[in-house]
Amino acid sequence: MSHARPQVVIIGGGFGGLATARALRRAPVDVTLIDRANHHLFQPLLYQVASAALAPGDIAEPIRSVLSRQKNAAVRLAEVVGIDVEAKQVRTDDGDDVPYDLLVVAAGARHAYFGHPEWERFAPGLKTIDDALEMRRRLLGAFEEAEWTQDPDRRAQLLTFVVVGGGPTGVELAGAISDIARQTLSGDFRYISPEDAKVMLVEGSGKVLGALDDPLPEHARKHLESLGVEVRLNTFVTGMDAEGVDLGDERVLTRTVFWAAGNEASPLGKMLGVPLDRQGRVCVTEDLSIPGHRDVTVIGDLAHFDHGVEAPLPAVAPVAIDMGTYVGRTWQDRLAGKDLPLFSHRDKGSMATIGHRLAVAQVGPLRLKGFVAWVIWLFVHLMTLVGHRNRVVVFTKWAWAWLTWERSARLVWNNPRRARVPDAEEEAA
Amino acid sequence: MSHARPQVVIIGGGFGGLATARALRRAPVDVTLIDRANHHLFQPLLYQVASAALAPGDIAEPIRSVLSRQKNAAVRLAEVVGIDVEAKQVRTDDGDDVPYDLLVVAAGARHAYFGHPEWERFAPGLKTIDDALEMRRRLLGAFEEAEWTQDPDRRAQLLTFVVVGGGPTGVELAGAISDIARQTLSGDFRYISPEDAKVMLVEGSGKVLGALDDPLPEHARKHLESLGVEVRLNTFVTGMDAEGVDLGDERVLTRTVFWAAGNEASPLGKMLGVPLDRQGRVCVTEDLSIPGHRDVTVIGDLAHFDHGVEAPLPAVAPVAIDMGTYVGRTWQDRLAGKDLPLFSHRDKGSMATIGHRLAVAQVGPLRLKGFVAWVIWLFVHLMTLVGHRNRVVVFTKWAWAWLTWERSARLVWNNPRRARVPDAEEEAA
Repeated sequence: MSHARPQVVIIGGGFGGLATARALRRAPVDVTLIDRANHHLFQPLLYQVASAALAPGDIAEPIRSVLSRQKNAAVRLAEVVGIDVEAKQVRTDDGDDVPYDLLVVAAGARHAYFGHPEWERFAPGLKTIDDALEMRRRLLGAFEEAEWTQDPDRRAQLLTFVVVGGGPTGVELAGAISDIARQTLSGDFRYISPEDAKVMLVEGSGKVLGALDDPLPEHARKHLESLGVEVRLNTFVTGMDAEGVDLGDERVLTRTVFWAAGNEASPLGKMLGVPLDRQGRVCVTEDLSIPGHRDVTVIGDLAHFDHGVEAPLPAVAPVAIDMGTYVGRTWQDRLAGKDLPLFSHRDKGSMATIGHRLAVAQVGPLRLKGFVAWVIWLFVHLMTLVGHRNRVVVFTKWAWAWLTWERSARLVWNNPRRARVPDAEEEAA
Repeated sequence: MSHARPQVVIIGGGFGGLATARALRRAPVDVTLIDRANHHLFQPLLYQVASAALAPGDIAEPIRSVLSRQKNAAVRLAEVVGIDVEAKQVRTDDGDDVPYDLLVVAAGARHAYFGHPEWERFAPGLKTIDDALEMRRRLLGAFEEAEWTQDPDRRAQLLTFVVVGGGPTGVELAGAISDIARQTLSGDFRYISPEDAKVMLVEGSGKVLGALDDPLPEHARKHLESLGVEVRLNTFVTGMDAEGVDLGDERVLTRTVFWAAGNEASPLGKMLGVPLDRQGRVCVTEDLSIPGHRDVTVIGDLAHFDHGVEAPLPAVAPVAIDMGTYVGRTWQDRLAGKDLPLFSHRDKGSMATIGHRLAVAQVGPLRLKGFVAWVIWLFVHLMTLVGHRNRVVVFTKWAWAWLTWERSARLVWNNPRRARVPDAEEEAA
């Protein structure tokens, strides 16, 4: 495999990495996209896998088939363990050094626990399919165990669900859990009423969906409360173990906590040897490269791009896609000897769904809520879902779920009760 | 929970267990179905999950939702760790003793390695969803690794796939792997030709699908060979490690072996204290109960029912369903004081599919092959698939796959390369 054409190496097959590859489809370059997973994941709908509405395959598409027809792109399943910006090569976990002329680091972020990594076992986050399946296991497993326990206190504890973090993921997850308990499982159990389940959403700031303009956060809170979710604002988690969560002086007994608060950038950022921000994101220049190396660009959730306002550009799919497209196009222009514009991003709006058929959305000057917002949410998410077949399947499942309240993906493999968090005694052992 | 009505405890939510529960739907009894998985699995199509044609949720349905409307049935997610036929109770792994008036043991079988349990890590079998996902991981992972290896010998080894066992599962699996390599993945790789993959089916007897009448086994062999599968009859596996398989004096270098030969009954049979056959199956009386205990019945793959010919009734779904229905109905009759007929089973035929659109089938006096058999196979499997929604989804996926050769479920979570069998060096360590 000799290389005459410029070599573009992209780390990460998320929205940013794929957008870069696609923008280079007609460029005279060889693209190698490296990812440790074999699939591109539509993360905005991952909470629906966790809440058993969709199957993993509905929101994930093999990167290899996404790029199947792009003949200048190869896909490599590997983990990157080193980046040498002087020698211009990337090291993979199978020991190979992959040389590059342009490197695009689009490795994303993981959830973070604010300095409490020990909380992860009690409160899984939601970034990968494994994360989502672990959440599903715990969620459905709690109902299974509650059905057969003889102790009413234990039953109440098992039927209490706490979601930490009032951003889009937390809000959507809390709404979905409430739907499951009150509608889907209703009638499936003989000794418990899933409707008795208590769902609590804990948020440190004064509102949920803080990234949206007023009055949408307040609408969202009211929507959630109408679904039976207890929303606790200005409340911080101060401790956590297998039996419950501490909210300051208050102790909430629960066996099921989900984490949707706080992110931490991929550790790959550290390998570049340039300044990072507090969340580990790489501070990029105006053309998304790193200082001193125009042939190394960082995009997506891993990039800190200062756009003149207080916070950097948010870690959302549209920003990553814009960045990837920009990097691909400008590199193509550079090869053609053209001038390079600087990167800019235009906000297209944001939205979140709350339970079965309600949402809030802000699109340009519009501030929408309720069913109208939900239809827009549905449309936008379906249209951006990768893979034509997936769109059809997801739409069919949603339509079915909407009509019947049924959840099509209530499947748990591995014994759900095996996968529960350890008991206090087991922990002591 | 006080119990006035007779308590029926069913162990296992497979075809036999579910059929028993359903046959008792109008009986004045309380049914408790215990399973360690939360789902009923349509095992005849499990190989399609392994070969990435279907998703786990397409062939599995939560037992709880299957029995949702049957108000005299409760579902318990637990593992049975003891059976006391004198005290008439079953012990679960959460330490509870569940009393019964009628016990139905329908715990099935696992694959067995003919006294070589150490082969399991090199050659996974196919009984659970986890098994199928492990097979899928290894299958797709081998192509991924072959794409980037620089060593042609290693590449050939990675692209060699061995299926052990020429029964329906082995035949269907070998055909599906050949389809994947020659059709589905074709075009997705840049440096290998998936068409170069070698698929070998190893069978100890003189024919594949030995349970079918002549000339169907010979048709099946020819179908397989037309798909490029190398069929090795009268050949035994004598050894196995991470780098290959020994077939007597011959060494086949491969990293991917699948096991579809030989079953072993569930260890629950031993707890009953009655004679077992060589495969660990419980020898049942003419009403499917065990000697000395008419209130303990054993059905499905775990039962050895002598029906006057050489072999006992085969371990297939129609037999299990017949047995379950019989047990449920006769118990209901017994409660009503009626006479009990003895169990009998009428063979309804059997069939196997070979690759994309070929099959062999024997139904009554008919011996069919090719496309006609495949349409019958399709129809029978769709009609017996549990869950209306599943039928629609599976039919849609099959239609899509048939038209496009696309596999809809090529998703692997966890890193496929992580899950590979250990290298020789790693093993030595």
